[in-house]
Amino acid sequence: MAKDNKHPRPKAQTPKGFQDYFGADVAERTAMLTKIAGVYHRYGFDALETSAVETVEALGKFLPDVDRPNEGVFAWEEDKDWLALRYDLTAPLARVYAQHRNDLPTPYRRYAMGPVWRNEKPGPGRFRQFYQCDADTVGASSVAADAEICAMLADTLEVVGIPRGDYVVRVNNRKVLNGVMEVAGLSGDDKEAERGIVLRAIDKLDRLGVDGVRALLGEGRKDASGDVTKGAGLSDEQAEIVMGFMAAKRATGAETVARLHELVRGSVIGVDGVNELETIATLLDAGGYGPDRIEIDPAVVRGLGYYTGPVFEAELTFEVLDEKGRARNFGSVAGGGRYDDLVKRFTGQEVPATGVSIGVDRLLAALKAKGRIDGSAAGPVVVTVMDRDQMAYYQELVAELRGAGIRAEVYLGNPKNFGNQLKYADKRGSPVAVIVGGDEMAAGVVQIKDLILGAKIAENATLEEWKDRPSQYEVPRDDLVAKVQEILDGQGV
Amino acid sequence: MAKDNKHPRPKAQTPKGFQDYFGADVAERTAMLTKIAGVYHRYGFDALETSAVETVEALGKFLPDVDRPNEGVFAWEEDKDWLALRYDLTAPLARVYAQHRNDLPTPYRRYAMGPVWRNEKPGPGRFRQFYQCDADTVGASSVAADAEICAMLADTLEVVGIPRGDYVVRVNNRKVLNGVMEVAGLSGDDKEAERGIVLRAIDKLDRLGVDGVRALLGEGRKDASGDVTKGAGLSDEQAEIVMGFMAAKRATGAETVARLHELVRGSVIGVDGVNELETIATLLDAGGYGPDRIEIDPAVVRGLGYYTGPVFEAELTFEVLDEKGRARNFGSVAGGGRYDDLVKRFTGQEVPATGVSIGVDRLLAALKAKGRIDGSAAGPVVVTVMDRDQMAYYQELVAELRGAGIRAEVYLGNPKNFGNQLKYADKRGSPVAVIVGGDEMAAGVVQIKDLILGAKIAENATLEEWKDRPSQYEVPRDDLVAKVQEILDGQGV
Repeated sequence: MAKDNKHPRPKAQTPKGFQDYFGADVAERTAMLTKIAGVYHRYGFDALETSAVETVEALGKFLPDVDRPNEGVFAWEEDKDWLALRYDLTAPLARVYAQHRNDLPTPYRRYAMGPVWRNEKPGPGRFRQFYQCDADTVGASSVAADAEICAMLADTLEVVGIPRGDYVVRVNNRKVLNGVMEVAGLSGDDKEAERGIVLRAIDKLDRLGVDGVRALLGEGRKDASGDVTKGAGLSDEQAEIVMGFMAAKRATGAETVARLHELVRGSVIGVDGVNELETIATLLDAGGYGPDRIEIDPAVVRGLGYYTGPVFEAELTFEVLDEKGRARNFGSVAGGGRYDDLVKRFTGQEVPATGVSIGVDRLLAALKAKGRIDGSAAGPVVVTVMDRDQMAYYQELVAELRGAGIRAEVYLGNPKNFGNQLKYADKRGSPVAVIVGGDEMAAGVVQIKDLILGAKIAENATLEEWKDRPSQYEVPRDDLVAKVQEILDGQGV
Repeated sequence: MAKDNKHPRPKAQTPKGFQDYFGADVAERTAMLTKIAGVYHRYGFDALETSAVETVEALGKFLPDVDRPNEGVFAWEEDKDWLALRYDLTAPLARVYAQHRNDLPTPYRRYAMGPVWRNEKPGPGRFRQFYQCDADTVGASSVAADAEICAMLADTLEVVGIPRGDYVVRVNNRKVLNGVMEVAGLSGDDKEAERGIVLRAIDKLDRLGVDGVRALLGEGRKDASGDVTKGAGLSDEQAEIVMGFMAAKRATGAETVARLHELVRGSVIGVDGVNELETIATLLDAGGYGPDRIEIDPAVVRGLGYYTGPVFEAELTFEVLDEKGRARNFGSVAGGGRYDDLVKRFTGQEVPATGVSIGVDRLLAALKAKGRIDGSAAGPVVVTVMDRDQMAYYQELVAELRGAGIRAEVYLGNPKNFGNQLKYADKRGSPVAVIVGGDEMAAGVVQIKDLILGAKIAENATLEEWKDRPSQYEVPRDDLVAKVQEILDGQGV
């Protein structure tokens, strides 16, 4: 550990794109994830925690280019095997299910929460390590599994603190989309490019509005900067079918389903999809999940490939101000759907699966925006040190406070400068300071300072008022815990 | 995703030395860590979560060989920087403190819990990813900080479920050890090898007994297999000083301190160390932590380098059977101490620090051995599906159960074979199955099966008794929740 002149001092920095989380940020996320796990558990989902490291071979399917196995992931060679950090929680689930399928129940409901890593260019608010929180049901082909996950998602949002009315879970079905494509004459293998453009266009309805989407279905669209996005080149008739689909949402699920049935008439897969949506709506109604919580919305797409049946997303409907001060809907915080190729690449066998992923950081931001983060991260009561030879006495006081369940600490820095102790309490966000010098000890009393009230008075008070120190109380030593608790209760901490 | 003949199917396997954690194992660890975090928080410690990835430069100090930066860690090159997975939680703390020292309070109390990674040869029970759970106080030179951590460790053990009397936190001080070395004439720079052998020997007192340690202090020791371990080559007089030190523990802290004072007489550092121990004992007494919970024990060493002052470890004193069926003390589950070079390699400035690390897997194993793991991981109530057209009705039942806080799920597999549904409930560890067919629906009743009682009867009952099905109840549909709750209460789940 001696300074070695051949090696300059190392830089104390997180690697580019990584960050540290301190105090309240950690506690708030942990509290939220604990609540989410409680709901998932109640629904019969079992926890699964895989290791952060997988073989590149097992993660596999994301690989755009087999010659560069670390494209998009952090990967390294180890004893001739390529290992990598997981980039999501679904790929490890696929590996686990294939590896342990004989021991796992069928269907297998599991939830997983933890960090994932992406080897992507970091940017503002874009980190290379972030949390995901997933729940999936593997091995159930019934859309009852999809309905269950939608209900669970609605319950989860309410349990973490998003009140009913401030969110909606929107459900659609890829089969209905495919049916509409078929009716619009876009189902051939040679039409893949057009279908991609149409899906992307529908997915942008929120952002581009009806006219913008219509333009993308036809010749294309020029944005405000003059950039042109190529359109799908649909005829007016084809485009109208797609536009009619996006506008198919009605006041109730039953009416929306009826309208969708008209739109997909003649397409076997489309009819199948609408029937699935109808079943989901019926099941959710039976569970008490009306359209005020979960609605069928044909405009939900959820990305491009991957999903094969029902898709869903949770949107928060209250307004927040964006970076330019404009009010806008908070937007999506979770999404998912049905996918069927989960373990096929391992076993050759198709296994149906459906699941949801919650955007942990987005949901936390939403709870903060709504003032729904609880005060569990409040600073500790600080017992200051007036006489360092009396440390045992201060330890006694602090042990008593903790014994009563009050977060408390004794000042452990150099006690010489008392001002530094109060600055420390301020930095810690302490609600209360306890002050005991020789006089107090002799008199068997303690001084208790309400720092929250003190700060308020300091902002507004005259010097005369300040001198009265109405935020500081002298009580008998035996009343320490009761008085501190009374002040904390008054502060609502 | 189509099968590509050029690429054979990937193997569904964790990388060598990694493992998956399922259901109860995850839930139990999470529950334990939540309790620990609660105690740490109450003591005024703030959570810190660093990213899993650090620059090799920042982790640095572990490097035995700069030409092989991934010795012992998982490391890879990224844009000309070497990155690595953290191998403990202390190295990232050093980096964080150096990076953010102007924004952090002084002293800075932080706790951290999470996985760490070691690139070591895996073995039975030895994994390359495992949990650590640390609490450290940075920037406090007072041994009050060490005393606080010992008290917190005792509280933590009791809160997670180790009753008083089943553990002891043992405290020693490296300065006392150094003082004894000095008195024994082992303090010169040329005696480093001997000091190492002596420290290692003391550390093995539990395992080798007094005679074994004595042999190692002298010529050396031959073990049962005939292998010889080289000794320190001390004279009898020197060895007796060390042996006396190890036997210095007395009934009370005050008596132990008095004995140690005799042993280190003439060594400045030794006297300093004994005084620190005395202060720690006084502070702990004031906080109500008597020698039934925390004791001064000169035999505690805690590894070789690193620590510079107080060292401590928590030992569980109840007996368990080892792999050969012999009773032995459960042993150490946590340890730590004071170290002063935490951030020096970054800033050149010496910053005092003290901390503790809990062996998460060891402590979990101890709680299991004591039957202290709660039943929160119990299987869900399974609502079976007799008629798949009535899925909405089953969803209604299951939603009602969940609404009452009961973990419950509807069977989502193919319902055709009812036997499979009961096998599924069995695999899930379900306490109760709910069975409703057409007859029940028409009569407005439900069948509720106590699967725990049923299994007990099945083990012992005659066929006649079995036919009576005394573990199955028919109740009005509206009594579903009440009856299920009654059965669960009776099962103690």
